Amino acid sequence: MARVHNFSAGPAAMPLAVLEKAQSEMLELAGSGMSVMELSHRSKEFQAIIDAAEAGIRRLLGVSDDYAVLFLQGGASQQFAMIPMNLRRPGKRADYVDTGSWASKAIQEAQLTGAAKVLWSGRKDHYSRVPRIEELKISSDAEYLHICTNETIGGIRWKQFPETKVPLVADMSSEIFSRPIDVNRFGLIYAGAQKNLGPSGLAVVIIRKDLIERVTGNVPIFMRYSTHADKGSLYNTPNTWAIYMVKLVCEWVESNGGLAAFEKLSEEKAGKLYDLIDSSEYWRSPIEKESRSVMNVVWRLTSEELEKEFVTQATQAGFIGLKGHRSVGGLRASIYNAVSMDSVEALVAFMKEFEQKNG
Amino acid sequence: MARVHNFSAGPAAMPLAVLEKAQSEMLELAGSGMSVMELSHRSKEFQAIIDAAEAGIRRLLGVSDDYAVLFLQGGASQQFAMIPMNLRRPGKRADYVDTGSWASKAIQEAQLTGAAKVLWSGRKDHYSRVPRIEELKISSDAEYLHICTNETIGGIRWKQFPETKVPLVADMSSEIFSRPIDVNRFGLIYAGAQKNLGPSGLAVVIIRKDLIERVTGNVPIFMRYSTHADKGSLYNTPNTWAIYMVKLVCEWVESNGGLAAFEKLSEEKAGKLYDLIDSSEYWRSPIEKESRSVMNVVWRLTSEELEKEFVTQATQAGFIGLKGHRSVGGLRASIYNAVSMDSVEALVAFMKEFEQKNG
Repeated sequence: MARVHNFSAGPAAMPLAVLEKAQSEMLELAGSGMSVMELSHRSKEFQAIIDAAEAGIRRLLGVSDDYAVLFLQGGASQQFAMIPMNLRRPGKRADYVDTGSWASKAIQEAQLTGAAKVLWSGRKDHYSRVPRIEELKISSDAEYLHICTNETIGGIRWKQFPETKVPLVADMSSEIFSRPIDVNRFGLIYAGAQKNLGPSGLAVVIIRKDLIERVTGNVPIFMRYSTHADKGSLYNTPNTWAIYMVKLVCEWVESNGGLAAFEKLSEEKAGKLYDLIDSSEYWRSPIEKESRSVMNVVWRLTSEELEKEFVTQATQAGFIGLKGHRSVGGLRASIYNAVSMDSVEALVAFMKEFEQKNG
Repeated sequence: MARVHNFSAGPAAMPLAVLEKAQSEMLELAGSGMSVMELSHRSKEFQAIIDAAEAGIRRLLGVSDDYAVLFLQGGASQQFAMIPMNLRRPGKRADYVDTGSWASKAIQEAQLTGAAKVLWSGRKDHYSRVPRIEELKISSDAEYLHICTNETIGGIRWKQFPETKVPLVADMSSEIFSRPIDVNRFGLIYAGAQKNLGPSGLAVVIIRKDLIERVTGNVPIFMRYSTHADKGSLYNTPNTWAIYMVKLVCEWVESNGGLAAFEKLSEEKAGKLYDLIDSSEYWRSPIEKESRSVMNVVWRLTSEELEKEFVTQATQAGFIGLKGHRSVGGLRASIYNAVSMDSVEALVAFMKEFEQKNG
């Protein structure tokens, strides 16, 4: 078997050890006589799995009892709708920062159903940076301030987070578990699982408990955080398989040093790519240095034809997922926790060779 | 390895051949160098999977091009909210039939946000039957008529479906793939996957294409059928693993004779259980004969203590999931397609033995 170097943006590479564990338990979870997929979500075996997944997230991120950890479906896109439904009371306003594709989608959904003000937009600069903190005129009368801390498509991230009086709501889909964060600075953190947490079909929502109760009576029962929080994410049948995989990923992250270790590793992996990109006119980063993502490294070549050729040759050489998102073009390497230093070093070597051959 | 006899209501037993196939491909899907969970949802490999899953459903159920087949998240519970949001225009009314726990949940969600009339309710009869067709006063001015064709908890099902002028909307979660149906009689069919289709975290929605466009502009983008239909269920990242499993289940159903074969088998399996239950005063079915489900067989013993003892002894003997839902008590055997005749015969033998010992 030859596993490729997988640089996909999500669904993305998963730790081989996690896949092997899932494979070994596929027909029977330790003594249960059933696959995890066959376990009732009301069984004690599954309760142990979801409890362990929640405990793993709480330990790794340092989530206090002031917050609920929810396992929902629909990924981040469903959260774009749920957040204003739950946290923006009738007649009130929410504030957003527009840093790229994903922030824009959240804004579009929020503006459809009420007042949502864009405090800052990077659109005119082609989303080449996040705002400097002093550029943001943060108001204290909004229901919340929404940011996307890492733009998967644009390849930019917030290195520091703004100070806010209103609850700070953050889409961390493509960077959760890439560094330690202070959860207490946020009102709500959410993440689609399919990048650093597990497979697709799951969203993890970390919500300050007082915010759960903000929702008003006309919001569909299924779309209320309170519905799911009251039942420990078992109001309806959750994505049991994905929750099991998140449990395994948490165990793998912890056994490899936790978030501090992965922060260091991510900086090193991204550093190798950015160093090469900055080393020659042949490659070009469209992103301001202080805003560069350490999860999604985007770069350009001198022509679109050359970029196309790069993707073709890279794919043949076993490097997958390097084509930039169709909305922005260019090249992108997503280097989530499961992408090893070996894969990054192999990519760097391939890039150097490509430059020599096609320079 | 000793696999148990799994009679869980969902998530439920899956075909062993399907689990073994998934296990064999866990680290690498045929030549891709990646696990299915690691494939980009935009990759050609995943497109082939979702196309095959859709084609399998279309072949097995005979779904014409007048209908879209969507793979959504959130299970049936999300559909309870999406259906009135999409199909009931402002100021209009939807009609519902209340046959038990799941129909009631759909009604509760629909009544929260607009007019929803209950045409018939089985509540006074403890949900022991579905309505006779002539009892239903079906109106022609509603936006749709909603039924739950098989109540997983109550153990009743519609053997025939009502004729309607308005679109018939049906929750088929716990009976889809258990018999051939005429899709053309329905406006919308939906099913949580975790019973007869695959693992949890997925809903299959079969919707007549003209109904997709009924939605009005204030519905959140994510909650519109049109959003997902326009993008072939790839508006956002779907539950890729569950869609892959549905593909494998479709292949397994087809290679075992299709829905006609499973209808026959289901009638035989259910027959063995109902025959035993009807054979003695020791067991009692609370369900009228013509309304009995062939997927979820519920029964009572002469006391709750004895029922508890039955569950204890059955569990020890390797029969899992026989406790009735906590809301109704009693006993229940869910005998979806993946539950073999061998498992049903073993349960019948166990029940006879239990009666002899504890009679």
